[in-house]
Amino acid sequence: MRADGRRPETLRALRITRDFTRSAAGSVLIETGRTRVLCTASLEEKVPPFLRGKGRGWLTAEYSLLPGSTSPRANREVSRGKASGRTMEIQRLIGRSLRAALDMEALGERTIWIDADVIEADGGTRCASINGGYVALRLALERLVADGKLAASPLRRQVMAISAGIVGGHALLDLDYSEDSSAEVDMNVVMDGAGDLIEIQGTGENGVFDRGQLNAMLDLAIASSAEIRTAQDEA
Amino acid sequence: MRADGRRPETLRALRITRDFTRSAAGSVLIETGRTRVLCTASLEEKVPPFLRGKGRGWLTAEYSLLPGSTSPRANREVSRGKASGRTMEIQRLIGRSLRAALDMEALGERTIWIDADVIEADGGTRCASINGGYVALRLALERLVADGKLAASPLRRQVMAISAGIVGGHALLDLDYSEDSSAEVDMNVVMDGAGDLIEIQGTGENGVFDRGQLNAMLDLAIASSAEIRTAQDEA
Amino acid sequence: MRADGRRPETLRALRITRDFTRSAAGSVLIETGRTRVLCTASLEEKVPPFLRGKGRGWLTAEYSLLPGSTSPRANREVSRGKASGRTMEIQRLIGRSLRAALDMEALGERTIWIDADVIEADGGTRCASINGGYVALRLALERLVADGKLAASPLRRQVMAISAGIVGGHALLDLDYSEDSSAEVDMNVVMDGAGDLIEIQGTGENGVFDRGQLNAMLDLAIASSAEIRTAQDEA
Amino acid sequence: MRADGRRPETLRALRITRDFTRSAAGSVLIETGRTRVLCTASLEEKVPPFLRGKGRGWLTAEYSLLPGSTSPRANREVSRGKASGRTMEIQRLIGRSLRAALDMEALGERTIWIDADVIEADGGTRCASINGGYVALRLALERLVADGKLAASPLRRQVMAISAGIVGGHALLDLDYSEDSSAEVDMNVVMDGAGDLIEIQGTGENGVFDRGQLNAMLDLAIASSAEIRTAQDEA
Amino acid sequence: MRADGRRPETLRALRITRDFTRSAAGSVLIETGRTRVLCTASLEEKVPPFLRGKGRGWLTAEYSLLPGSTSPRANREVSRGKASGRTMEIQRLIGRSLRAALDMEALGERTIWIDADVIEADGGTRCASINGGYVALRLALERLVADGKLAASPLRRQVMAISAGIVGGHALLDLDYSEDSSAEVDMNVVMDGAGDLIEIQGTGENGVFDRGQLNAMLDLAIASSAEIRTAQDEA
Amino acid sequence: MRADGRRPETLRALRITRDFTRSAAGSVLIETGRTRVLCTASLEEKVPPFLRGKGRGWLTAEYSLLPGSTSPRANREVSRGKASGRTMEIQRLIGRSLRAALDMEALGERTIWIDADVIEADGGTRCASINGGYVALRLALERLVADGKLAASPLRRQVMAISAGIVGGHALLDLDYSEDSSAEVDMNVVMDGAGDLIEIQGTGENGVFDRGQLNAMLDLAIASSAEIRTAQDEA
Repeated sequence: MRADGRRPETLRALRITRDFTRSAAGSVLIETGRTRVLCTASLEEKVPPFLRGKGRGWLTAEYSLLPGSTSPRANREVSRGKASGRTMEIQRLIGRSLRAALDMEALGERTIWIDADVIEADGGTRCASINGGYVALRLALERLVADGKLAASPLRRQVMAISAGIVGGHALLDLDYSEDSSAEVDMNVVMDGAGDLIEIQGTGENGVFDRGQLNAMLDLAIASSAEIRTAQDEA
Repeated sequence: MRADGRRPETLRALRITRDFTRSAAGSVLIETGRTRVLCTASLEEKVPPFLRGKGRGWLTAEYSLLPGSTSPRANREVSRGKASGRTMEIQRLIGRSLRAALDMEALGERTIWIDADVIEADGGTRCASINGGYVALRLALERLVADGKLAASPLRRQVMAISAGIVGGHALLDLDYSEDSSAEVDMNVVMDGAGDLIEIQGTGENGVFDRGQLNAMLDLAIASSAEIRTAQDEA
Repeated sequence: MRADGRRPETLRALRITRDFTRSAAGSVLIETGRTRVLCTASLEEKVPPFLRGKGRGWLTAEYSLLPGSTSPRANREVSRGKASGRTMEIQRLIGRSLRAALDMEALGERTIWIDADVIEADGGTRCASINGGYVALRLALERLVADGKLAASPLRRQVMAISAGIVGGHALLDLDYSEDSSAEVDMNVVMDGAGDLIEIQGTGENGVFDRGQLNAMLDLAIASSAEIRTAQDEA
Repeated sequence: MRADGRRPETLRALRITRDFTRSAAGSVLIETGRTRVLCTASLEEKVPPFLRGKGRGWLTAEYSLLPGSTSPRANREVSRGKASGRTMEIQRLIGRSLRAALDMEALGERTIWIDADVIEADGGTRCASINGGYVALRLALERLVADGKLAASPLRRQVMAISAGIVGGHALLDLDYSEDSSAEVDMNVVMDGAGDLIEIQGTGENGVFDRGQLNAMLDLAIASSAEIRTAQDEA
Repeated sequence: MRADGRRPETLRALRITRDFTRSAAGSVLIETGRTRVLCTASLEEKVPPFLRGKGRGWLTAEYSLLPGSTSPRANREVSRGKASGRTMEIQRLIGRSLRAALDMEALGERTIWIDADVIEADGGTRCASINGGYVALRLALERLVADGKLAASPLRRQVMAISAGIVGGHALLDLDYSEDSSAEVDMNVVMDGAGDLIEIQGTGENGVFDRGQLNAMLDLAIASSAEIRTAQDEA
Repeated sequence: MRADGRRPETLRALRITRDFTRSAAGSVLIETGRTRVLCTASLEEKVPPFLRGKGRGWLTAEYSLLPGSTSPRANREVSRGKASGRTMEIQRLIGRSLRAALDMEALGERTIWIDADVIEADGGTRCASINGGYVALRLALERLVADGKLAASPLRRQVMAISAGIVGGHALLDLDYSEDSSAEVDMNVVMDGAGDLIEIQGTGENGVFDRGQLNAMLDLAIASSAEIRTAQDEA
């Protein structure tokens, strides 16, 4: 039994509020336990220089921790003039994961910007950003179709992500901050709707792990995909 | 009659949700019509170098437009390595306004960080940031008192802000984005609970204005202070 | 009676030396008491990206304190890689004020750069920058007309600026540094040649102010406009 | 059979030249096929601020592609003022992997800097950086012991890394650049001397992968650890 | 005969106005033909970290071209976030040259900042900066002695600089901008009051030069030192 | 007799390994005693904006000290966001020196990038960068000719560089780090194959020098040119 009463294989309460703002093409507030992330998808009718004239689209993701989302306060990255390595690493993961969802030829020469701004951080913000970013992306693509700019949505697969870890020797799903801080192994799994893998990253925080532990974490992650998929589809 | 049916002297619907997040010492979501700003107040138990050892506290404010808060998307300032002039100007205004609320000796050698992150922008974000920032500040100070770190709150006055402008020759209160874009004069008024002035900034966007117009805008602003004060006090 | 013997409504000695340098299209050295600012206007035959192809011109202002202009020395902003918030705020004020002087359609697709570099700082540098920048701008426009590039000057109004404040409870005009440092209220007023307002900014430095004080400061500022106008016209 | 004649499970020729430079405490040139990386380990007798006074050491890794290491030339990151996201991601991986090798209490309040500068890039630079960085680290620690600064080496495990991938449906070990560019799945595995895992990162570049493919890549990677370990030990 | 009627060995009119500003400890406006540079010397009662506690002083020089000093306008370096290579090279030359004038032990743990801001640029700005910087430095040191902070001036030699070049095959002294732009060889010579050398830099702009040309330029430079020394001494 | 047994006029052992890497168009490892620099020449089929459409080529040089090349470690310049003044000064010298070797019209609208990355630093890195950069340049130009992109090499002269100095009152050639640190005068001489001068820079580190000393250093430098030329030609 975990500190918040969950069983090892139980997700935190997952809530996705669509259309949280009206300015962006797609917008959701995703809440996973106490973690809350505002995800928006914005459209731009051009592509970065390296893709111009190739008939293909692009997706870029940016991530930030709002200063008040942690205690003590997280310094604003613009103050030191550049994003931290952690932010870079996370936004690259979100971008790769959601690009896997898109048929870039079908999208055409457009860029979709996914912004994930963490309002409250209690572990799992990168997975919440992917799960919410996917819904914001889908909403933005539906709008493109509704506006007659695209004949059909260029989505080619559903994308979802979840963390797992080894804490006190036990494989646990969906770590909150206190669990994450004391985990021996920390893993993030990005999957499609069929339970196939898009990206896995597993790190021994203070030691090594074996393939049995790896498989235990993967089993937990893949088993949770149906519940995340349902939450995304309902939003 | 204005586009949204308001009379010249009518505020947009003003809603302040306290304790919007739990990580910061004080936190509110303030909504003014479609404009929404997340304001948090965080405490740090030290002061900037220029104040060390003087027994006085400090308050710093930072402001950002989240990328999805506008259409088209607002580029993230960290990408170009520094805050824009507009952001600098706004966060200096918020900081000066809220420092006027504080007895720095009574606060002691602490810094309060006010963060105003705009979730949706429809005009009036700097005034909303001040109004919401004031409430977040008050909540954070109440926590300091409740935690026994201060005997009494070092708040010495209430702070509120509102915009007014001249649009089509008429003085209007609390401009939304469409009004602000076509205003001949744009003004921001920061006041205390007694209707005295803390800061005024008035700009002829495309021409000049006379003292009669200045006074008409000030009259509107000051008359609205009771309603803002009530919203703040209820939160 | 003030420290330097002036009466409350008296300007400091104002001297404008035109053609201080020959490299820029317009150039003046403006001296207000001990404050001295070098103002130049440079022409560029193109506009920023957001204005291209629209047939309109633009004016941008930049401001700096030279390191030796203050004691202790002011650090050069390039050393920390970006302009300070104070510099940003001032150069935005200068730019807005002088753009109000120009008919951008008549200017055509050109940019005018106004540079205000403070050689010696004793209070009132932002107003001196506007007053001197206006003259540099007028000289540059006259040169454009003399060179046959424009049929007539696109100036549409004169622009002048002055500070006022409340010091020891009294409204004073044109504060020097020692007065500014101890002022209860600090105000900058930008006006046209007819005494109408272009921008006002008033700040209670350590408290609030009422409309009577506001009006006293405005009265002083507007009354001084004729003297500034004369100094500008003579240069 | 692969383009260079290797079998799927064969490593490229691996050569480690120790003491490549004399200025750093530890230094190796590691060559993996055409990929060449200069790895150095430098000692600093202090720790970053967040560790001061805690009696523990630290290890930081930095990585760069030298401009001439690729064709076309790689722009120097200092020119745009900050490391790219890719560089950040790689140097964080190197740092985490090599910190797993160290007993920080036994190291004491020292920082070890691992620098991996890629002289020629033909795929697998991050793994080569870890493999060479480990040897440079070991050499530097031996020097600390030889100099009498430490009683025993604080190394607690051997660290080695290798890439694997799915190319044309086949699992291959140690991809070169041409294979990496066309891989369906790209994976990096960091292991200890016993074949246990320190970090795994696997990415579907253009699609998804299943657990069978994941296991095939892991099998290849783990089977190669003995050969890498031998090359490290000989150096 | 040169374009401005000078003979090959003739300096441009050299004028040094001392005490051009009152805020800095030493301040001069130096004019060499149309070139004008404001040089100030400011004192700081501490030294950079690498010198702390060593009982020695330091001198740092900074240089900038004011935007209006050239036509077309010179972009402000703070806008792109860093000083250009040319600026860096010049301010390092000024610093090395003036440090040669100082007995750092006698100065004590103080830093002298020399700022050279070019008001109008017509060739020779780096030499004018050294010549004016030397006078500003001497004035600042005299003030330190007058204020009783130093028993005697720590100046140990006079420092002066002049340019020479080969233009159209002829050795010329003190090139203006039009000569400098067409020079085959460009040289800067920094000397002491006795005609000994502190620094020489000579560059073949578009070809090579021989020792005969080198000596011709050095002869011109050294012969001019008396006239520069006199101008400095009179100021 | 010098510390390493050399006579005053003796060069350190000079070794140039061509084709050190295969990715760049030209590549050499140059070794001068313990100093080692990797020099590469890369081609880009376009020129900087200021040269577009003029039918001329360009050469740009960049220089860095790799972190492990010195003890204590040299911080990576990207960490503080910009190149140091020393780096700027050196890369400008390398660029000027090697541009003197090229007929830019014959090169056509291409840029050649010379990168000099110091692997081990023991004095004389800027001269080694020029000597090695010249060979890398020549190799890259030969490749352009071999590839049929140019009919003949646009090289118009050989370029070589050497340091000399006054140490303990004696003129010495090719200073190593320990000599350089204690030199009274430090000089760098860039020459062509005929012993004519391209650039000279001489600095009195802690005092002045006279023309006799200047000539003694120049004599040493010019006399060494044949040996450097031979080493370059053999590579």
